[in-house]
Amino acid sequence: MKSTRLTKLLGIKYPIIQGGMVWVSGYKLASSVSNEGGLGVLGAGSMKPELLKKHIVKCKSNTNKPFAVNLPIFSSYSQAQIEIIIEEKVAIVITSAGSPKKYTQRLKEAGIIVGHVVPSVLLAKKCEDAGVDFIVAEGFEAGGHNGRDETTTLCLIPQIKEAIQIPFAAAGGIANGSQVLACLAMGADGVQIGTKFACSKESSAHENYKDEIIKANESHTALVLKSLMPVRIAKTNFYDEILIAEKKGNDLAELLGKGRAKQGIFEGNLKQGELEFGQISGLIKVCLSVQEIFYQLKEEYKKSLNKVVGV
Amino acid sequence: MKSTRLTKLLGIKYPIIQGGMVWVSGYKLASSVSNEGGLGVLGAGSMKPELLKKHIVKCKSNTNKPFAVNLPIFSSYSQAQIEIIIEEKVAIVITSAGSPKKYTQRLKEAGIIVGHVVPSVLLAKKCEDAGVDFIVAEGFEAGGHNGRDETTTLCLIPQIKEAIQIPFAAAGGIANGSQVLACLAMGADGVQIGTKFACSKESSAHENYKDEIIKANESHTALVLKSLMPVRIAKTNFYDEILIAEKKGNDLAELLGKGRAKQGIFEGNLKQGELEFGQISGLIKVCLSVQEIFYQLKEEYKKSLNKVVGV
Repeated sequence: MKSTRLTKLLGIKYPIIQGGMVWVSGYKLASSVSNEGGLGVLGAGSMKPELLKKHIVKCKSNTNKPFAVNLPIFSSYSQAQIEIIIEEKVAIVITSAGSPKKYTQRLKEAGIIVGHVVPSVLLAKKCEDAGVDFIVAEGFEAGGHNGRDETTTLCLIPQIKEAIQIPFAAAGGIANGSQVLACLAMGADGVQIGTKFACSKESSAHENYKDEIIKANESHTALVLKSLMPVRIAKTNFYDEILIAEKKGNDLAELLGKGRAKQGIFEGNLKQGELEFGQISGLIKVCLSVQEIFYQLKEEYKKSLNKVVGV
Repeated sequence: MKSTRLTKLLGIKYPIIQGGMVWVSGYKLASSVSNEGGLGVLGAGSMKPELLKKHIVKCKSNTNKPFAVNLPIFSSYSQAQIEIIIEEKVAIVITSAGSPKKYTQRLKEAGIIVGHVVPSVLLAKKCEDAGVDFIVAEGFEAGGHNGRDETTTLCLIPQIKEAIQIPFAAAGGIANGSQVLACLAMGADGVQIGTKFACSKESSAHENYKDEIIKANESHTALVLKSLMPVRIAKTNFYDEILIAEKKGNDLAELLGKGRAKQGIFEGNLKQGELEFGQISGLIKVCLSVQEIFYQLKEEYKKSLNKVVGV
């Protein structure tokens, strides 16, 4: 795989960022991805500040390569997490779910490279204006929290490419090496891969959650909670509960306010829990190690490149 | 652009199929696309049998290259249209919106190459079993009628590739040459392009409709009528009417049963009419001739290929 503006900016070998996912992306996953030449990312969204600190420390002792922290801005812990990130001299932060204006300046003053996750061209432009160093442009097919415009990754990439000057990674729906090549062909400087790594051996998610990804076919996820904060989840029992609550006009915030994601992803409760993963789960048929995933991505990329170059 | 299994099957130079769109794809558009080396497609969905016959005859006199007819199976005219297609010895038919079992055998017995439009892996497999020669796999971002699973083009391509042996074109969200390369990289044997051609000089659509595509940004379309038959349309007045009717529980079929698509696309009535086009409209900023579109697609493809091959 070729080096790009993004690999140079982040100091990584391959243009592959691992999505910083709640209850999935601890130091084991992040350090393994960084050791393979991608950008490992700790998912701070499911960590209290002290736990985040532990994961950062462990990540540093497990890899001497760059890694990042994904920081959902809306979290009540985000301010405290920022202080730990600066204290621990984390090289890269990817903020999400909030205004890029909120923390970008503070982080950059501390010498940190800042990325921000966006679902739209409009927000990508705002990030550039706010001084963000790179964008993660995430489409409708991505697992977890999602944008309101429902713009797909394929539609997002060329529009983002035209709209901004800073490097960007494409995210949402990417699980194999031919798709990495496809995203680079459309002008992305790299990709972010979520669900594939959520289903890796080093992911902290529960085996039940990983099995659900493996069993999923193309129609096993849906974007729900559009009136509140859109999120793509698996069509398990909790999904049915949401549809019923929406129909009845029940309080959705209350339905959610029970640690559903932890129950589903971390504890493997398929009945009560919320399982966040992406539409590309239909393509994932086995749980591999991070090393095996990188080997596969590189082989698929090479094969695909030979195919488009050959006659 | 390289030749593929699909270009060989269809006898065309470039792996580009023009979407057979209602009120858009008459003989002018179809013959122009075929003359440029793609596959021009007449949209029979908005033509009574006698009108379809006229367009076929005119298309034949305007090009000596292969062209196709897109035939929505659910239409009450489909049986009569099939007879005309066979009588007029059209080389290729792309069926859609109905079971591939219905007409495939009859068409193949008449020596016609049969394609079928699918929104899912499941239906792609059924097409293969029914003897269909090629698939058009269309994602969530496509304009007009759409699948229930909301699978995006990026997620659909690698899954279709793994599931079937026959050639397939990717459709939905494709408007530039870098995206054509991206789709081939992911394993598609070609692409189908809709909205970009709907906004061409040779399209029979009204200028108001074309202007609406040009003005559209990334969030200007939405998938609606999910309880009836999902369709992606522009967020104009008619879109608001649908949302209100859905909220009130009014009869949606009645709301639609007023030639809305004709009013919007063909007559340019932006208030009462339904404007079907895709999410990639946000990327389309000018109305070009078919010749200019092909020139651009080839240039973009070449540039993109050089980029992924170069260091």
